[in-house]
Amino acid sequence: MAMPRTGRRPGAGPTRSKILSAARTHFARVGFDAGTIRGIAAEAAVDPSLVLHYFGSKDGVFRAAVDFPLDPAQFVPQLLAPGLDGLGERLVHFFVETWDSPAGRPLLALIRSVVASADAAALLREFVSREVLGRLASALEVDQPQLRASLAASTLIGAAMLRYVIELEPLASASPDELAVWLGPTVQRYLTAHDLTAG
Amino acid sequence: MAMPRTGRRPGAGPTRSKILSAARTHFARVGFDAGTIRGIAAEAAVDPSLVLHYFGSKDGVFRAAVDFPLDPAQFVPQLLAPGLDGLGERLVHFFVETWDSPAGRPLLALIRSVVASADAAALLREFVSREVLGRLASALEVDQPQLRASLAASTLIGAAMLRYVIELEPLASASPDELAVWLGPTVQRYLTAHDLTAG
Repeated sequence: MAMPRTGRRPGAGPTRSKILSAARTHFARVGFDAGTIRGIAAEAAVDPSLVLHYFGSKDGVFRAAVDFPLDPAQFVPQLLAPGLDGLGERLVHFFVETWDSPAGRPLLALIRSVVASADAAALLREFVSREVLGRLASALEVDQPQLRASLAASTLIGAAMLRYVIELEPLASASPDELAVWLGPTVQRYLTAHDLTAG
Repeated sequence: MAMPRTGRRPGAGPTRSKILSAARTHFARVGFDAGTIRGIAAEAAVDPSLVLHYFGSKDGVFRAAVDFPLDPAQFVPQLLAPGLDGLGERLVHFFVETWDSPAGRPLLALIRSVVASADAAALLREFVSREVLGRLASALEVDQPQLRASLAASTLIGAAMLRYVIELEPLASASPDELAVWLGPTVQRYLTAHDLTAG
């Protein structure tokens, strides 16, 4: 099914939605590595060329399926560029500012779907592991990089749950700067401390 | 409506459920302090004496409405009893062990309802503020006790999200001891550090 050339973004139609839904099921079931364009196409009962037409690559359809509002290939290197010093504060500040901005609105929807559905949870787990934590971990020259990145992620998710979902004060009304000051040293310790067990 | 004396716990019936549902709406709307037995009874269209019959007090119906699987009046003093030293690790260990146990099963349901419903979020916020963080904060002889307790809560909720909802490794399979070692120093810093902004 070719899209009529009306100037609409390719893929606002029902075929694109059907492929995305199939991709969510497929990746949740088999994971990213074992996932294939062919498998998604079969699940959606469309030709594989249509999947490529709409999303370009397996990576592309995976990112679209997760609907993560930011591109980790951009923001992770940006946060790392100034060096490890102050990385914790930068990470918290960036995360809170993004979430507070219009770009953050899909994040709440993402949390809702992850909590409601094991498939969505598997998809986000795969995405965050590969795209965010993987990048972060490979840039850190420390032991246990995956553990460290996961602990940093737990800090950010916990803050988001209290600030945006439960809306607990004083976290709900605090500024990004305040949150960066409170939580930054924690993230910094997780990512860079020589001994993770020391306070 | 009197319960027949069948040996069942009082309140397995529809009237109890109706009151609980009314209490959730009522407390979510007006908060605990402004909430009244009379208001709950009106919302449920029952006599106020029935609310007391089933739940004993405003506190009782509030706790039942939140359906928190543990009694903070018990566990908070127990955790504090050995002193502030090591409190962070004890708190994390207790939280993870509880969540891993059968008593923890309702916690996942609680997270689901909180993420799905603003009323449930308001109820949990009120409960955690008053019953858990309030107790903890008043036992800590530090500045900004509410902030400190909230930050500690964010650590625990973030860990729970990754371990139980998103099931991200290595946090998902780590032992309570390991989690206590990794996260304990963070919680300890939040609760007791002289300067919250230092790592």
